[in-house]
Order: sequence, then C-alpha cells, then structure tokens
Amino acid sequence: MPFILITNDDGIDSPGLVALRQALGRLGEVAVLAPAHSWSAAGHTKTMHKPMRVRRGALADGSEAWVTTGSPSDCVALALLGILDRRPDLVVSGINKGPNMGEDVTYSGTVAAAMEAVVSGIPAIAASVDGWEGWDFEPAARVVEQVAREVLARGLPPGALLNVNVPALPYEALKGILVTRLGRRVYKDVLIERKDPRGESYYWIGGDPPDGEPLEGTDFWAIKHGYVSITPLKLDLTDYALMESVRDWKLQLTR
Amino acid sequence: MPFILITNDDGIDSPGLVALRQALGRLGEVAVLAPAHSWSAAGHTKTMHKPMRVRRGALADGSEAWVTTGSPSDCVALALLGILDRRPDLVVSGINKGPNMGEDVTYSGTVAAAMEAVVSGIPAIAASVDGWEGWDFEPAARVVEQVAREVLARGLPPGALLNVNVPALPYEALKGILVTRLGRRVYKDVLIERKDPRGESYYWIGGDPPDGEPLEGTDFWAIKHGYVSITPLKLDLTDYALMESVRDWKLQLTR
Repeated sequence: MPFILITNDDGIDSPGLVALRQALGRLGEVAVLAPAHSWSAAGHTKTMHKPMRVRRGALADGSEAWVTTGSPSDCVALALLGILDRRPDLVVSGINKGPNMGEDVTYSGTVAAAMEAVVSGIPAIAASVDGWEGWDFEPAARVVEQVAREVLARGLPPGALLNVNVPALPYEALKGILVTRLGRRVYKDVLIERKDPRGESYYWIGGDPPDGEPLEGTDFWAIKHGYVSITPLKLDLTDYALMESVRDWKLQLTR
Repeated sequence: MPFILITNDDGIDSPGLVALRQALGRLGEVAVLAPAHSWSAAGHTKTMHKPMRVRRGALADGSEAWVTTGSPSDCVALALLGILDRRPDLVVSGINKGPNMGEDVTYSGTVAAAMEAVVSGIPAIAASVDGWEGWDFEPAARVVEQVAREVLARGLPPGALLNVNVPALPYEALKGILVTRLGRRVYKDVLIERKDPRGESYYWIGGDPPDGEPLEGTDFWAIKHGYVSITPLKLDLTDYALMESVRDWKLQLTR
C-alpha cells in the first residue's frame, strides 16, 4: 500500500488539507505534517538557524496530523529526516488557496515543499486552486487524486515534479485536463510611500494583483478556459542553450 | 554610461559588497541597495504583507548606499519600483560569502535577487565565492567585473541570468573560467532532537554541510579544480521533455 505525505503552505487549519487528505486516503496510507500558520510568499526556505517545534495535532475533520513551527519545506525535511518512521512514496503539497502559475512557482511555498521532496528523490505534486476564501476544495482534491494515482503507478523522472492548478469550478463544469508550460506574469506592483507618526517614510509594495499572459499552451490559458493545468517542472535551472552562447564569448582571466 | 544596481544577501556590512562596488565602478555608474542584515537561506521572498524601511547608509569604504529592512529580492523590487530614479542596465547580486551551486540556487537569496531583476526584464549576475569568514573578495570582484563587462556589451536572453562562483584562491592562482551546468548536492542533514527545560522536544536540522557531486562539466567540478564557474540559469522551470510523457498518460476527468 503506498504511503503519501501531505503538507501545505496555508497551514494546518486550511480546508484544502482536509479535502486532500480525504481524497488521497483512497489511494493509500496518508500522513499530514503541516505548518502551524500560513507561509504565503515565503519561498523555498529551510530553517537551519533556529530550532523547530513538532507536535501532534488534528485536521478540522478530526484526523491525525503533525504540526510544526517550520516552513512548508521544513515539513518535508522534518518528515523525511525522522518524524515519520517510513519513507513516503509520494509527497503532495496543497491544496493551496490561490493559483501558483508562471513566475509564482519561484515564490511559492506550496511548490517549494514539493521541490524539497524531489531533492530527496521522492516524486511530488504541488496542487493549487484558482479560488479564494470559502472555495470548495473537493473538486480540486478529486483531480489531484487522479493525478496522484498516475504518479504512484508510473513514477516521475528524477528532479521533476508536477504543478497542478485547478479552476474555481464545480467538478462537473471542469472542461478537461491540459498538460501546459509555465506562462508569464504581468506584474502591477506599485511602490507606496507612507509616513509614520514621527514623519519618517516607510514603504509598501502594493498595486493590483498580477495578471498572467493567457497564451495558448500555458497554465494561465488552461485555467482561464476552465481546464485543469498540469505543468511538469524540473529543479535543474541550467539554461543549456545559453551555455553554448556564453562559451562563445571565450571569457579569459586577464593576466 | 551604463547604470548598475548592486545588492546582496549577506547584508550592507559585507566586505563582498565593497569589493564589488569598487570593481563595477570601473564599468559605469553604480548604486547599492542592500538588506540591513543577512538573509541566508531565506529563498525568493517578496515582502507583500508588511511595510519596509529604506534609509540612506554607507558601505565600509564610506561610499553611499541604500539600506532596507526587506529581503534581497525586495531590494531589487524597491529599486526598480521607484527608490532609484533610473532603470539599471544590469543587476549584480553578491558577492556572497559561500558558494551557490547545484540545488543551492533554489534556496539562495543571492540568486533570488538576480531572478527578481530578470522577472523585470533586466539582465542579472549572481556572484558567490567559495570562501568564508575573512576571505578576500577582491579576486572574485575582478572576475565579476569581467563577466559584467561582457553582459553589458552582449546582453542576455529574456528570462536568463548568470550564476558565477569563484574559488577561494588568489587571482593569479585561478586556473581559468568554465561555463558549467548545475551539479547536484549530496545532503547530510540530520534531525537532532533536544529537550527544553520543561521536557518538551524541539528539533534542529543539523549534520555536516552538503557535498557536491564533482562530475565533470558541473559547477562543483569547476570550483574543486580551481576554475571560475559560470552557470547560465533560466527562470522557466517547465520540464518540456516531461510534458510529452505526461500527455501520453492521457489523463481524463472521471464523469
């Protein structure tokens, strides 16, 4: 029976965790180790410089879980280093409230946790839904269950993970599943200067949330048109094409 | 005259910043905007949920700089959103104390700051030296100056950056410059359990620092053999080869 570790970025109280646990429980044995609070936009952090707590807790449906003061990546590291007494066959991170598409994946704690698993040689899925407060995670959980079943059966190549985004639609309204590439965000960040009570400046990064370029074939296009998006990601960021160009520069040390 | 923004991960007091500023000052106008403190292993964080301070400060050599409570990525975002009155032609992040090779790049604040520039369409270099406390950054700064000169002259394709690692050697002892791919870390993390004064457990992620597999052609090999390593990186994490395989799975929604 396969063993699946579930973690997330939104923290132990997220209903996304409950929906995911129930769906993946149909595929095998499941353990949950999740952060005590939300880690939005915390990136791929591993906590080396301070200790972490790990305690037993429960999800909203009463099922057992581990809770830690660490980040989503820490959850995976802690689980693999010894909190769990068995090595998972699959790590699933999510279901995140809000999509992780395009450049989001380099900021995303949800994706970072999946990357941490891949670094340790375990196949991983990062899952997010394009919906916010109060959204029903059950349709997305059903989708992730199907993807997880395939990954358990087929495996993934070393260094790769699947990034799944699900539109905010009832399951019956989903149009299908598309395998996509990462699209590009169009950022609308604005610097906002304020004065504190002593007249000193401080700054917010504000502005409208970023759009995505909805080019056909991308994750943004799929979600916009009601399709589930599965984007295979790899940890090797090497730009192999650019290696050749830079070699042609024939850089030499000056002597 | 080109305009270069310098930031780093080790914070405003790092001697790596001074060496870099002096070297890049030979290529054009330079501005420094750096974090007030070190952000080691903080990943690609953008601070959206709290305000940041930005103040005028100085490097150890007395030259002008901006200092912020934000992260390395925030430094670049703040600079581009309005702290600087001119858009940089190049962003250089570093020189980091300690190498950023293999999987390090997904954790590295030094690389994250360079990525933030690339997201905004500005060519970027992340620079690190394979030396620690007390190491002389001047040889590495000379190397980065040469790489920066080429990038200013030739540009980089959209979505790409150069990750430069320099061995801890005097300039004259460097063997040359190699264009490399990312290697793989071999992690030696160990979970260490301690008891607090009340008998409750807490955990450290400890163990020996990770090694790198010194395969020929990788950044680890280059550094181990005394060569400067230049690894072109790209932000697009899509695994295009795996896209084809996953399409062959023919995933369908159950109806």
